[in-house]
Amino acid sequence: MSSHEESRMGLLEGITAPGDLDRLDDRDLGRLAAEIRGFLVSAVSRSGGHLGSNLGAVELTIAVHRVFRSPADRILFDTGHQAYVHKLLTGRREGFERLRTRDGLSGYPNRAESVHDIIENSHASTALSYADGFAKAHTLRGQHDRNVVAIVGDGALTGGMAWEALNNIGAARHRPVVIVLNDNGRSYCPTAGGLARRLGELRGRGPGEGGETGTFFEELGIAYLGPVDGHDVPAVEAALRRAKDLRVPVVVHCVTVKGRGYAPAEEDPVERLHSPGPFDPGTGVQHPKPATTWTGVFGGTLVKLAEQRPDIVAVTAAMLHPAGLGGFAERFPDRLYDVGIAEQHAVTSAAGLAYAGFHPVVAIYATFLNRAFDQVLMDVALHGLPVTFVLDRAGVTGDDGPSHNGMWDLSLLQVVPGLRIAAPRDGTRLAELLDQAVSLTGPSVVRFPKGPLGPDLPAVATAGPLDVLARAEGEDVLLVAFGPMTAVCVAAARTLRDAGIAATVVDPRWVAPLPEELAELASRHRLVAVVEDNCRVGGAGDGVARLLRDHGVDLPVRTYGIPRRFAGHAKRAQLLEEFGLTGEAVAAEVAATLESRDRHLVRHAEPV
Amino acid sequence: MSSHEESRMGLLEGITAPGDLDRLDDRDLGRLAAEIRGFLVSAVSRSGGHLGSNLGAVELTIAVHRVFRSPADRILFDTGHQAYVHKLLTGRREGFERLRTRDGLSGYPNRAESVHDIIENSHASTALSYADGFAKAHTLRGQHDRNVVAIVGDGALTGGMAWEALNNIGAARHRPVVIVLNDNGRSYCPTAGGLARRLGELRGRGPGEGGETGTFFEELGIAYLGPVDGHDVPAVEAALRRAKDLRVPVVVHCVTVKGRGYAPAEEDPVERLHSPGPFDPGTGVQHPKPATTWTGVFGGTLVKLAEQRPDIVAVTAAMLHPAGLGGFAERFPDRLYDVGIAEQHAVTSAAGLAYAGFHPVVAIYATFLNRAFDQVLMDVALHGLPVTFVLDRAGVTGDDGPSHNGMWDLSLLQVVPGLRIAAPRDGTRLAELLDQAVSLTGPSVVRFPKGPLGPDLPAVATAGPLDVLARAEGEDVLLVAFGPMTAVCVAAARTLRDAGIAATVVDPRWVAPLPEELAELASRHRLVAVVEDNCRVGGAGDGVARLLRDHGVDLPVRTYGIPRRFAGHAKRAQLLEEFGLTGEAVAAEVAATLESRDRHLVRHAEPV
Repeated sequence: MSSHEESRMGLLEGITAPGDLDRLDDRDLGRLAAEIRGFLVSAVSRSGGHLGSNLGAVELTIAVHRVFRSPADRILFDTGHQAYVHKLLTGRREGFERLRTRDGLSGYPNRAESVHDIIENSHASTALSYADGFAKAHTLRGQHDRNVVAIVGDGALTGGMAWEALNNIGAARHRPVVIVLNDNGRSYCPTAGGLARRLGELRGRGPGEGGETGTFFEELGIAYLGPVDGHDVPAVEAALRRAKDLRVPVVVHCVTVKGRGYAPAEEDPVERLHSPGPFDPGTGVQHPKPATTWTGVFGGTLVKLAEQRPDIVAVTAAMLHPAGLGGFAERFPDRLYDVGIAEQHAVTSAAGLAYAGFHPVVAIYATFLNRAFDQVLMDVALHGLPVTFVLDRAGVTGDDGPSHNGMWDLSLLQVVPGLRIAAPRDGTRLAELLDQAVSLTGPSVVRFPKGPLGPDLPAVATAGPLDVLARAEGEDVLLVAFGPMTAVCVAAARTLRDAGIAATVVDPRWVAPLPEELAELASRHRLVAVVEDNCRVGGAGDGVARLLRDHGVDLPVRTYGIPRRFAGHAKRAQLLEEFGLTGEAVAAEVAATLESRDRHLVRHAEPV
Repeated sequence: MSSHEESRMGLLEGITAPGDLDRLDDRDLGRLAAEIRGFLVSAVSRSGGHLGSNLGAVELTIAVHRVFRSPADRILFDTGHQAYVHKLLTGRREGFERLRTRDGLSGYPNRAESVHDIIENSHASTALSYADGFAKAHTLRGQHDRNVVAIVGDGALTGGMAWEALNNIGAARHRPVVIVLNDNGRSYCPTAGGLARRLGELRGRGPGEGGETGTFFEELGIAYLGPVDGHDVPAVEAALRRAKDLRVPVVVHCVTVKGRGYAPAEEDPVERLHSPGPFDPGTGVQHPKPATTWTGVFGGTLVKLAEQRPDIVAVTAAMLHPAGLGGFAERFPDRLYDVGIAEQHAVTSAAGLAYAGFHPVVAIYATFLNRAFDQVLMDVALHGLPVTFVLDRAGVTGDDGPSHNGMWDLSLLQVVPGLRIAAPRDGTRLAELLDQAVSLTGPSVVRFPKGPLGPDLPAVATAGPLDVLARAEGEDVLLVAFGPMTAVCVAAARTLRDAGIAATVVDPRWVAPLPEELAELASRHRLVAVVEDNCRVGGAGDGVARLLRDHGVDLPVRTYGIPRRFAGHAKRAQLLEEFGLTGEAVAAEVAATLESRDRHLVRHAEPV
């Protein structure tokens, strides 16, 4: 580090715990904020991570830690990717060297890292419900000196559970909760909805002019202070102190700028610096991305389909570009709906559109569809409506930690009557299966992983609707491969063949309903091994095993997938290896299973 | 029917379609409303069903059908149990003879019954999202003459997805939606939350005096008309006509009285006439209920545990008495939280309480936990918090149709890391397992069915943690029984024994994690049959099959449960029979499987 950089880091280096902030004066605080911004841009430019939201929360986080006393006071970050500054102020500066790498600093709050971290979850809109729970507990115990502080973005307020919490918090004036509304007008794109428009009107007024304009919150029984310039530490502090003294539920409305202080992030309408990979800190330009991604193939194919089919409309829950809908939005702006971070409404408003004759495509990260399972089941499937759910980031994602892996969708969605679920193995199959999905008269899912596409994997033969990827001369093992695990199975088959074991690889394309032909094909083998990148509990493996049972095919089956536990953050490849989802690992398991069964049979054949 | 009754029914008999309402004058409308009330009390007293909410919606439904033209205008009932009057006005009077019976009239809107029915779902808070979808479709097509009308209770507004929808509806002033707010101040109990308090203040004012007081909706961009006396047809009609002409999103705030016009229902603080069984229409007194129910045992046990354990608190999502918490609320009012129809908040506020040292018991119908799967997974389980979910009405419920069966909880919850799931087979086990669940340091579930408890089923032996209910001399089949299916398996074992087949019955008590000892016990049998009252996709059967595979026990397994389809309304016993979940049916399946395998083995043993 140069001496110039050292002097720039002078104040930040002295902060190892929130209490260290007490001795800084207003000028120091300005310098500290600048140091933090320099540090964040530099650190994230090397590791990748969430940038814009953290640059916008610098002063606000400093003020919160000066007014409240963590961890006795409970500081709860909604959508934890805005907690980098909090990490810096709670003694974790050095951890940023290994941000989002295995055994390094998490990109979200993490209780294993610090007593100051509480909510590890990175799904939005949860903090207010936690806050209500803490407030109830403090009241029950008579701990009236403890504060609960929830830091919530305007985007998070578009989520239904935030509303449920506000409605409950407002009903109990005797249970104080301080809600710090970090209002930057954006979720990922500009925040959708009527409330966001109203907040925008408030933002238009000068600081403190809010007055009677906080009526939305006041209607619910929640006091309102603001709007406050969220980049003015003394102003935010003053408002927080007032809020703290009120001893009622109160919103402190802080107006902030996403990307504040770093021009490439401030001037970034399509949010390339929301969560970039490594980039040039001078220009904000990211290192080139791989040419073709699953998301890109989806987005391009959808535009082509929509050109032929005026009934196709698209729905996003505040993830326009990450979900691959940027091109669709440009080409068909009237047929694109961003509903905010509101997955439930995304699904059921799509049901309404489908009822009225359209074919909605709901593009969403696999993990976020968990929020709308009931709506998929009841509002779409019970009514048999033609809605296609496109699940991006299915399987192992890695960097973002346990709550971003899309490892539950097959388990959840398999139970839904009439829902057809496709898992394409490559780009060609993605385009084909999407085309088929939007042509169905009932509900459908197409799920695929994060990241770059591998090469296409053409079938060497077909068995009815089944694609055969590798065909062996013998009949030792049938490898049933789903989606991106097909490449893994092809590699495993090669290794097995070298060991003298005959392995066939088949891709059924559809996880539900499974083609019945699979039972007949399986019955000609000694062992069936299923490989998927979903949780192995209730996943495709359980589905194949059930199909065989139901057809009276009582062969040994082995199922490989993601174990039933939460996966720490790491690279995708690291996690796949950890889970045994590599060609080598699958081959070794299969070989060992066959060998143990041979031994078993030999033992049973011995004379008693 | 006496001639007196006939004359009372004179107007209603003439209504076979909504258009028939046009020729009635104001006095006729009053008479019609009275006739409808008489009809509803009489019909529901015989069949059981939802009473209070329908008595409150009589005039409002008449007015809606006079102002709008169904089905070209889309009339959407939220929480469809308030649609009885709608059914009467759309030609289904005679169907009430067989209300909620198999092949009879559904207790909810049903597309198979009428073109006037749209949303079949009985989960709350969905209608506004459907409405937004219809409005989008009409706008895309330029169908500016078509109206979308959503009839929503104040209780439904406590649900997060209603908020998501309001936020989206308010953002699009060019897409008209008429929201008829049927505000009776109650969900099941009085409606929880800050908004309900505000609506209560509005209700306190006289008709039309709302004026600037509808600011909650106006803040979101939704016009507000009201409050209107919801029992005054001309007043409601006038407001609806004005709303229709506005061509913007608008709320018509109708103040109604639940149970209106029938004293036993109006004067019913604990809501015995919300959804009664058959009752005496003169007094409102229901035919005696069975002495002991699963719900009752849960409620009584919880009170006892809470007396010993001051850290136990209870949470309900607007279902205090039906979920068995009435006694708890009386005994520990400070430790009981009704959060409204807000399952997501119920779960995550419980997470906050657990974080702060309490042990929350969230008592909820199994089907409604679907709404909060993500919160169970992320907010509770990822954080390893000690919250106990008590799932009432798990398995087949029957009368209320497809959306009330609790047939998905085991499939969903099995995937959740660290979550322990108990399925008690009888009252004694319910009390024991609840005690164990609230003593765990991590999350847990106790699930049980609707209805009366059968006799206790004591174990005849144990195998480690496994309860053996019937032990056979031979080792033909192991019947693995879960929860109330244990009685079914005991009956099946008896039938099998009579046929010379040796059947052992085992109840593992815990669905997750399954006791490993089950693998060893299973390995000593020729066939393993699992019986559960959950969807067989991803349920306990799949779990047992996986356990055996993972232990290298490659025996034939058969799994019996609810098929992957939506079940029509019928009696619970009728549905269990339809699904083959009776002792006789299971015995027949098992016998057939053993016989077919014997034939198979013989065939293979023949000389080639």
